[in-house]
Amino acid sequence: MRVLGIDPGIAIMGFGFIDKSGHKLAPVQYGCIQTEAGTPQEIRLKQIYESSCELLDRYKPDTVAVEKLFFNKNVTNAFSVGQARGVFMLAAAQRGLPISEYTPMQVKQAVVGYGGAEKKQVQEMVKMLLKLTAIPKPDDVADALAVAICHAHSLGMNERMNGAKRI
Amino acid sequence: MRVLGIDPGIAIMGFGFIDKSGHKLAPVQYGCIQTEAGTPQEIRLKQIYESSCELLDRYKPDTVAVEKLFFNKNVTNAFSVGQARGVFMLAAAQRGLPISEYTPMQVKQAVVGYGGAEKKQVQEMVKMLLKLTAIPKPDDVADALAVAICHAHSLGMNERMNGAKRI
Repeated sequence: MRVLGIDPGIAIMGFGFIDKSGHKLAPVQYGCIQTEAGTPQEIRLKQIYESSCELLDRYKPDTVAVEKLFFNKNVTNAFSVGQARGVFMLAAAQRGLPISEYTPMQVKQAVVGYGGAEKKQVQEMVKMLLKLTAIPKPDDVADALAVAICHAHSLGMNERMNGAKRI
Repeated sequence: MRVLGIDPGIAIMGFGFIDKSGHKLAPVQYGCIQTEAGTPQEIRLKQIYESSCELLDRYKPDTVAVEKLFFNKNVTNAFSVGQARGVFMLAAAQRGLPISEYTPMQVKQAVVGYGGAEKKQVQEMVKMLLKLTAIPKPDDVADALAVAICHAHSLGMNERMNGAKRI
């Protein structure tokens, strides 16, 4: 099963595709969609939408997870991130993909085992779990992979629970 | 010149198309795009996007204005409104439409002549300026028309200033 994790943003939107096979996780492709400051925001949104469509059509994920940001204190930034998140979610919905959401705390809990983990710890775990040679840069890419890992874990847990129910 | 004003939201997105001819303003079409609570948000975003595309293609505005919400204190709501706003802006950008933004204070200033005006005063002025028989309901529709009027005024002012510069 192929999982896509997204760390939404207008300037940098991190993405990470990973393959989950039983307990094994393998990186497929990761990086970020970047748009230039100073470009009208509707043009930046169009660029994000088009790049999202390209990525979804190229790497064909089975399921998608997006970071949920409840605790952002900067409301102007929340609008801006929300807009970017909206166009990505549209691209996923147009392809009939299920979208899950996880808070940063859920992501940390899933990846490090502790919801109050430091960013650096999350990044080290992402590197280790996916057997990468270095921590992906910028931070948004590592964050997107962390969201994908969190979603893969959650799917695995659901599979086990459904299995248990069947007995 | 046809102007579209938008009051963005995920549950109700108000829209108002008006025609500006010199100093005269005339309503063309107004109403709202509504989505059901409980429906997954990516599906609601897809519905808003599709309805936005239909409206833009049917009423073919020359220019678009969207309410800018800086002062919303509810960050979760800001994300949600941002997402809806994002998919609308994408639909407009895909049609090469210029998008302007106005704060609620700028809208009140333009419609009532006073940035601290009450909602009710704005609604009465919308009704009067567009020669409507009643205040459009829900509030989001009147708000969208107010944004369109604000944009029409602002365009008129620019025309006059450009005219003055030419002398």
